[in-house]
Amino acid sequence: MTERTNLRRLPERGSHDREVIDAILREALICHVGFADDAGRPVVIPTIHALVGDTLYLHGSVASRMLRTIGDGANVCVNATIVDGLVMARSHFHHSMNYRSVVLFGTARLVDDPAEKDRAFAAIVDHIARGRWEDARQPSPVEDRQTMVVAVSIDEASAKARTGGPHDDADDYELDVWAGVIPVQATYGEPVPDPDTTREVPLPAYLDGYRRGSL
Amino acid sequence: MTERTNLRRLPERGSHDREVIDAILREALICHVGFADDAGRPVVIPTIHALVGDTLYLHGSVASRMLRTIGDGANVCVNATIVDGLVMARSHFHHSMNYRSVVLFGTARLVDDPAEKDRAFAAIVDHIARGRWEDARQPSPVEDRQTMVVAVSIDEASAKARTGGPHDDADDYELDVWAGVIPVQATYGEPVPDPDTTREVPLPAYLDGYRRGSL
Repeated sequence: MTERTNLRRLPERGSHDREVIDAILREALICHVGFADDAGRPVVIPTIHALVGDTLYLHGSVASRMLRTIGDGANVCVNATIVDGLVMARSHFHHSMNYRSVVLFGTARLVDDPAEKDRAFAAIVDHIARGRWEDARQPSPVEDRQTMVVAVSIDEASAKARTGGPHDDADDYELDVWAGVIPVQATYGEPVPDPDTTREVPLPAYLDGYRRGSL
Repeated sequence: MTERTNLRRLPERGSHDREVIDAILREALICHVGFADDAGRPVVIPTIHALVGDTLYLHGSVASRMLRTIGDGANVCVNATIVDGLVMARSHFHHSMNYRSVVLFGTARLVDDPAEKDRAFAAIVDHIARGRWEDARQPSPVEDRQTMVVAVSIDEASAKARTGGPHDDADDYELDVWAGVIPVQATYGEPVPDPDTTREVPLPAYLDGYRRGSL
C-alpha cells in the first residue's frame, strides 16, 4: 500500500489482501495495460496476462508497439476488472455496479532469459486453460524469436469490489420504480471444433465445461 | 486516422469505420480510461461511459481522483473491448482470441453547463438500460452537485476485431491436438429484486430479457 493505491473513495470496498488481489488477477481473462507512448501521452491496450509470484507476464509479437515501448523499464499501470452485476436503484444517484477490480503499478522489463521466457509462455497459456501448455505444440526456435515477453514487477496493488443490492434513500422506497440487481457473468459456450480439422481429436478434459474462477 | 491510430500490426483486423467503432462503444458495458497522474505516471481506471455524437461522457463522484485529474484538459486514452472467443490452435504460437476492441484518444473537459450535464446523465443511464432514465428518480440539486461529468472529445479512434477459427501451420494439422474456438459471451441472469423492497413494482419491459448488442 502506498499513496497511489491508498483507497480514498469508499474504502470499505477496498482491500490490500494479497489473496483477494491474486484471485481477481487469476480469474480475469484479460487486463488493460496503461503506459506512456514515446511522446508521453497515455495509451491503454487490452492483453492477456499471467501472474507468477509477484510478477505479471505479458506477451506479444516482437512488432508489438506496447511491448517495445514498455520493455525498457517503463512505469505501467494494469487494471483487471470482472463485472458481476448491474445495480438498479430507485434513484439514478444510487445506481451502481457489482464488480471485482485490481489496479496495480509496476515496472516493466523485457524477458531475455530463455528459461524465464519459457516459464512465462507456459503461465500465459495455462492462464487461459490449465493443461493446454503440455498438450499443444510448444514454440519452435523461430516462433520463440518472434514472440516478446515482458515482466511487470508488481510494486503496488489494491483490489476493490462491490456486492449486494441497491441502497436507496429512505423516502425513495415508496417510489414506483423497480430496484434490484441484474447478474452479469462471462459464459463459455460449447467448444466449436476447427472446421479445417483433418484428424479427429477428442475435446480434452481441461476444455470440457470450461469456466474461470475454478482455475 | 493519425500516426497513433495507424494500424501497424495485422492491419486486416483493423477499421476506422465510424459505424464499427460506435457499435463497439455502445455494446461495451464499461471502458478503461488511461491518463497520467499528477506525477506523470500512467493510471488505468475502469468506468461506465456513454457515447453522444463525437463525445464520450464519463461520470463519478466529485471526489473521484480520475475525474479531478483529467477534467482540466488532460489527454486521455480510452479502450473498450468485448471478448468473443478463445481460439485454440494446434501450436501455442497460433493461439489467439476473438474480440472487438476500440482504442480512442481524446481531450477531457469538465462539464459545467447544466443542460449538457443533464444530457450526459441521461446518456450514461440509458447506456446501461435504455428507458431507465425516464423511469427512476432523477438527480436532486444536491445529488447533481455531488456528481462530476467529464466529456472526452474523440480526436482519433480505431477498431480492431478478430473472428473465426485457428490458422495453423500446414504440418500441425496432423498433430493429436484439439483445435477450435470456445465462444465467450457476457450473459445477464434473471433480475434479482431488492430484498429490502417494501412496495411491489413489476419488472419493467426494458429490463426483461436484458442483453446488450440490441441497444
